[in-house]
Amino acid sequence: MGKRVAVVLAGCGVFDGSEIHEASAALVHLSRGGAEVKIFAPNIEQRDVVNHLKGSPADEKRNVLVESARLARGNIQDLAELKVSEFDAVIFPGGFGVAKNMCSWAVDGKNCTVNEHVNSTLRAFHSAKKPIGLCCISPVLAAKVFPGCEVTVGQDKNIDGRFPDAETASAIAELGCKHVCKDVSESHVDKANKIVTTCAFMCKAPLHEIFDGIGTMVEEVLKLA
Amino acid sequence: MGKRVAVVLAGCGVFDGSEIHEASAALVHLSRGGAEVKIFAPNIEQRDVVNHLKGSPADEKRNVLVESARLARGNIQDLAELKVSEFDAVIFPGGFGVAKNMCSWAVDGKNCTVNEHVNSTLRAFHSAKKPIGLCCISPVLAAKVFPGCEVTVGQDKNIDGRFPDAETASAIAELGCKHVCKDVSESHVDKANKIVTTCAFMCKAPLHEIFDGIGTMVEEVLKLA
Repeated sequence: MGKRVAVVLAGCGVFDGSEIHEASAALVHLSRGGAEVKIFAPNIEQRDVVNHLKGSPADEKRNVLVESARLARGNIQDLAELKVSEFDAVIFPGGFGVAKNMCSWAVDGKNCTVNEHVNSTLRAFHSAKKPIGLCCISPVLAAKVFPGCEVTVGQDKNIDGRFPDAETASAIAELGCKHVCKDVSESHVDKANKIVTTCAFMCKAPLHEIFDGIGTMVEEVLKLA
Repeated sequence: MGKRVAVVLAGCGVFDGSEIHEASAALVHLSRGGAEVKIFAPNIEQRDVVNHLKGSPADEKRNVLVESARLARGNIQDLAELKVSEFDAVIFPGGFGVAKNMCSWAVDGKNCTVNEHVNSTLRAFHSAKKPIGLCCISPVLAAKVFPGCEVTVGQDKNIDGRFPDAETASAIAELGCKHVCKDVSESHVDKANKIVTTCAFMCKAPLHEIFDGIGTMVEEVLKLA
């Protein structure tokens, strides 16, 4: 029987929701790994709606669960209904929606607050010693909720201009966590906490390299599950 | 030097735009194939906006180019600006947006009209003998614009309940085209017209099989380019 994996989304679109290609990559790799997947998202209003053509805020309101349903092809549930006992692992793709809708990192950095259902979901999987996979900016959720854990968001310096958000690594260290430098093709496994992370679009890399990096994260999560 | 490929989107979300996982899969395979990709979409209002959670129409308006920009991470242009001389091939992912925004197939079936820029783009690539890749419902665009061409949308019977939209194959035949039955892992190449098609989500299959099927379509397009 396949591993039962919950995937938690934060909307649909890199600038105000889940990064679409990261979410799709995770789902492709989970499918190939034979996992039974259910998709969830918080039933809350988005912090903002960004016009992705102009790159500027739009004067409208959208709901995180409703927009995440686009990625889930309608097959999605309110995160408040997630029962940890029904799953072997959980995965959080990245995108600004994680830093805007799941927590307030985009505004408050390391002093952010975390959405109550995201927080309780993470703590419940951690307490049950079930693996948690995160990519891109999502590792900040683990850094905030589990001080002392180990994560990667890529490199801690903007090497060759490929890691423009390298200062995120410092903020993670300031939270008392260990940032482990990894390239886009790699994941880091915190064995003690069963947290698996990969940098994905935190690295400026060709899309297939990001896809493959997420593949290593999913593979490690399924191994630990 | 990589092949220069235009990818044309129809929005962002299976029920009113481009099917997200098909679009992402095409982009991953193009990246792996070393293609130089530019993304386009018609700058028009969507035919409708579907609440993907409820599966019912929402009382709002969205623009196809603006929503497609979510899939393109902001890096997208108006389809009206596409110059065929700058590309070696073009690819149209599927999704209801193709049948709603790019043509009126969702309402009018084989009597549909095709958006003028979609029509002129298809004709220009065809005249220049440059390959055209289509998946899912997008092959109906070729069937409408190029009578006599060969395409696949999967099977012409609902075998094992895996092809619930099998009647699309009959409509394609009624347009004077040849429908070629193929499974989700395969593509059909119409060598005379340089049209490559695969059924993608027209087949109820695990996501990684759809991903791989789109990979064969992209591979054939790059070979012909």
